Amino acid sequence: MKLEHVPCAALSIHVIRRLPRYLRELDVLLAKGITRISSVQLGRRMGLTASQIRQDFSCCSGVGIQGYGYNVAVLRDRLAQILGMDRDYSAILIGAGKLGRLLMESFSTVARGYHLRAVFDADAALIGQVIDDMPILSISNLRSYIRKNGIDIAILAVPTGEAQRIADAVTDAGIRGIWNFTNTDISTGESQVPVEDVHFSDSFLTLSYFLAQDDRASAKR
Amino acid sequence: MKLEHVPCAALSIHVIRRLPRYLRELDVLLAKGITRISSVQLGRRMGLTASQIRQDFSCCSGVGIQGYGYNVAVLRDRLAQILGMDRDYSAILIGAGKLGRLLMESFSTVARGYHLRAVFDADAALIGQVIDDMPILSISNLRSYIRKNGIDIAILAVPTGEAQRIADAVTDAGIRGIWNFTNTDISTGESQVPVEDVHFSDSFLTLSYFLAQDDRASAKR
Repeated sequence: MKLEHVPCAALSIHVIRRLPRYLRELDVLLAKGITRISSVQLGRRMGLTASQIRQDFSCCSGVGIQGYGYNVAVLRDRLAQILGMDRDYSAILIGAGKLGRLLMESFSTVARGYHLRAVFDADAALIGQVIDDMPILSISNLRSYIRKNGIDIAILAVPTGEAQRIADAVTDAGIRGIWNFTNTDISTGESQVPVEDVHFSDSFLTLSYFLAQDDRASAKR
Repeated sequence: MKLEHVPCAALSIHVIRRLPRYLRELDVLLAKGITRISSVQLGRRMGLTASQIRQDFSCCSGVGIQGYGYNVAVLRDRLAQILGMDRDYSAILIGAGKLGRLLMESFSTVARGYHLRAVFDADAALIGQVIDDMPILSISNLRSYIRKNGIDIAILAVPTGEAQRIADAVTDAGIRGIWNFTNTDISTGESQVPVEDVHFSDSFLTLSYFLAQDDRASAKR
């Protein structure tokens, strides 16, 4: 990528988290044959203000002209680039239980642009099996595999009690990011390796808070 | 719940999202037999500052005394209460595919305090089957079931293309919250029904952003 195209030197995490949402919406527009959209129209579709959208995309030069709206295809490709979907990054999955298998099956739609290179498990009954064309490797080879193949992302779908030990192993082996489904917080210490958590329970309880809060408010009235 | 115990009239979403994390950490402390902890100690364990923690818990009266730290059990129960885990709320699951079945299996650990009351699907081959002691009901009975049983939360694990139609149905039937696994944004219109999304792809791409950003920064150096 040419340096003049380097976008968004430092986005806030709130903006970063909106980018995949924009990408999804732009994919919907492209599927409908819509080639150009204004910040007002896009905002209406997404429940955001036009000025919020203009601010979010202010880092993306060349995606639109004042008054003419955004070129949907160009903006979509720029966002995909910013999100690393064009870089042939690689991933491995650790944990071939039910969640792991679900992640294997949905990998190509979920981790677009990435290559799933291997799956690891500690269960001797699974090691050597081939699931969805992917051989299950022994966790004892985890570090050497990452080192040898320069793997970018490790997906952790192991039991909670194993989470930190596996996180230490992949971090030590030079992994560049961890997608964490272990329902516990893990530390990557001084390595600064980013960790993205998908904690089902945290998410559910956040929703539950709003019901309880609503009931508390009703009881007050 | 007595009104004098009503906590946290209006928390920011950032604080709300930290509450389940605190709950998990307090459960770990209790399992270790730790009964009291200072904001400094808790902060060290969680990578937060002591003042952040004191501020987050400022709404929870009676959980600790200045200089003596928090009573772990009392704080844990207060948080569980704030998060609605003590209210016997009910949930239904819509979509008995692989993701749905995973959510069924993990329901009791993920949605603590909730009761899973029924599972719905549109697939005639599934309807009438009993999976994990739960009969699969026809989606055609969805609205009447919610109305009749006063269901609190609907878990959507249906295909993307079905998401909004099902969201409309459950909202119309009086559901109070939607946990959304459909990988698309849904609207609950003027009903103000809260929606909590678990978008795997959005989460993955957020992590991917940091790798790409790191590579862009390296290319610049």
